Amino acid sequence: MTEQDSTSRIEIVIVGSIGLDTIETKFNRQIDVLGGSVSYACAASAMYAETGMVGVVGDDFPGEYMDLYREFGINLDGLVTEAGKTFRWSGVYDDDMINRRTISTDLNVFETFQPELPPSYLDVPFLLLGNISPELQLHVLASAREPEFVVADTMDLWINIARDPLMEVISKVNMLTLNDSEIRLLTGEHNLKKCAQIVREWGPEYVVVKKGEHGAMLLSEAGIFLVPAYPVDEVQDPTGAGDSFAGGFMGRLASVGTVDNASVRDALLTGAVVASFGVEAFSLESLKGLTADAVNARLAELKAMITL
Amino acid sequence: MTEQDSTSRIEIVIVGSIGLDTIETKFNRQIDVLGGSVSYACAASAMYAETGMVGVVGDDFPGEYMDLYREFGINLDGLVTEAGKTFRWSGVYDDDMINRRTISTDLNVFETFQPELPPSYLDVPFLLLGNISPELQLHVLASAREPEFVVADTMDLWINIARDPLMEVISKVNMLTLNDSEIRLLTGEHNLKKCAQIVREWGPEYVVVKKGEHGAMLLSEAGIFLVPAYPVDEVQDPTGAGDSFAGGFMGRLASVGTVDNASVRDALLTGAVVASFGVEAFSLESLKGLTADAVNARLAELKAMITL
Repeated sequence: MTEQDSTSRIEIVIVGSIGLDTIETKFNRQIDVLGGSVSYACAASAMYAETGMVGVVGDDFPGEYMDLYREFGINLDGLVTEAGKTFRWSGVYDDDMINRRTISTDLNVFETFQPELPPSYLDVPFLLLGNISPELQLHVLASAREPEFVVADTMDLWINIARDPLMEVISKVNMLTLNDSEIRLLTGEHNLKKCAQIVREWGPEYVVVKKGEHGAMLLSEAGIFLVPAYPVDEVQDPTGAGDSFAGGFMGRLASVGTVDNASVRDALLTGAVVASFGVEAFSLESLKGLTADAVNARLAELKAMITL
Repeated sequence: MTEQDSTSRIEIVIVGSIGLDTIETKFNRQIDVLGGSVSYACAASAMYAETGMVGVVGDDFPGEYMDLYREFGINLDGLVTEAGKTFRWSGVYDDDMINRRTISTDLNVFETFQPELPPSYLDVPFLLLGNISPELQLHVLASAREPEFVVADTMDLWINIARDPLMEVISKVNMLTLNDSEIRLLTGEHNLKKCAQIVREWGPEYVVVKKGEHGAMLLSEAGIFLVPAYPVDEVQDPTGAGDSFAGGFMGRLASVGTVDNASVRDALLTGAVVASFGVEAFSLESLKGLTADAVNARLAELKAMITL
């Protein structure tokens, strides 16, 4: 994080959405809080390694949120401001804090988003293609010179309307992450182990099935690894949990530097812990003051919970 | 399992229901197959330690099922046959093999069941009070002379209609097991960690929250242990999974002999593995040929899935 060599300092690049979210839970209702997959993922990742953000905001994007990105230490060379309004999403969580209803989605400047890697990002070793259209993921992937480890996330929308380019993305990445209902939709299988086996045959060496409050499952050459979710005292806002999980994972993996079965498993646990902090407050609030020490303490706790 | 001393040979006693189940899944429909909590739990437990069954059947109970109990090596001193029909349950599973609808429940001889420990069971060290009315659980518990470790299971029905005697059961047992929706109903809390903390304050040193396909959570003095579910290739019939989990747990714990945090965690993993075999075929089919060696092989696999 202190390295300043101009050609290689960015260790992780994350592309995805930036939004202003209006979120209602049984605890609270907050309007236009900072959200979007790339916000959560970069905030989580930047704790561990120099992270560059590729995204777009409108000219209404609050300066305080831009400052917050900087406070997190996120490199903003790839953040573009366009004339118009920032992407907005609004949703209401059920009392179980798991199920949610989308009230409105206004793509605004995100609708015509054409992500480009700025020169300082071209040699990035760790690349996280957040949930945007597979065509745009392919474009970003093609412009990265020699990424060592590429992770892609996706969602039901792209499985339904852009299957062919999505399959091309899947064939080209090292890891695919998606949630249980999405991988079932993608493969037409119900059993999650079979789903992951099918996707792995399409290319990715690592397949991660996210199961929300129930953790995640990794399938790799070494077999299955069951990633537990850290049992938090109180979920305040589950928005972005999957993104801070992915960001924490990438950050930890990049900071270790080597990618193998052990480092991937360790990084997944780290991601789970970062996500557990993330859901304990609204928006990015609980990630703000989070330190690697606090993450490591909870990581030790989580490891004890799966140790005989 | 080979000890034949008449006063102390029974290491585990399990009380619960015996039923003839009619089960429909997307794979199959089977009529009047052997079921009931005590059937599954004893079949699982008897693999590890001499297990006595306390239950009731009608005079229509098929001789082949009685033979099957004997094949499992279950001691039947506490099994009573009464005039009338055996308890029957009928249900249909959704395609997800998780949710189910009860089509009919005919208590028959189970309605007036008064479980009694026969003399050979009175000195049993490990006692599993399966899901029957709390009054009957208290009666059985009172007649056991000096049980070392008592586990009780329960269900929403008793939480709703027999809360006071259930609270007395809870105050007197070493471990309470119940599923996530039941412990939420019992405590009025949603967060499962808080639920378990509340119940633990009521008496049981060990509280186990069962989460079906998502495993289970143990809370004890040593903190939380997350019990993963073994990811099976195909669930054929989830009926009795919680009971074979409890039975496998008790069997393994009794065979080890000492009850401490390490042995309880190990026994819970064993229970999860036994349950995973149980759901791979209808009724007790897959438990029939199951050996401790096969369980141990899968146990090693499961342990590798939670090892960094």
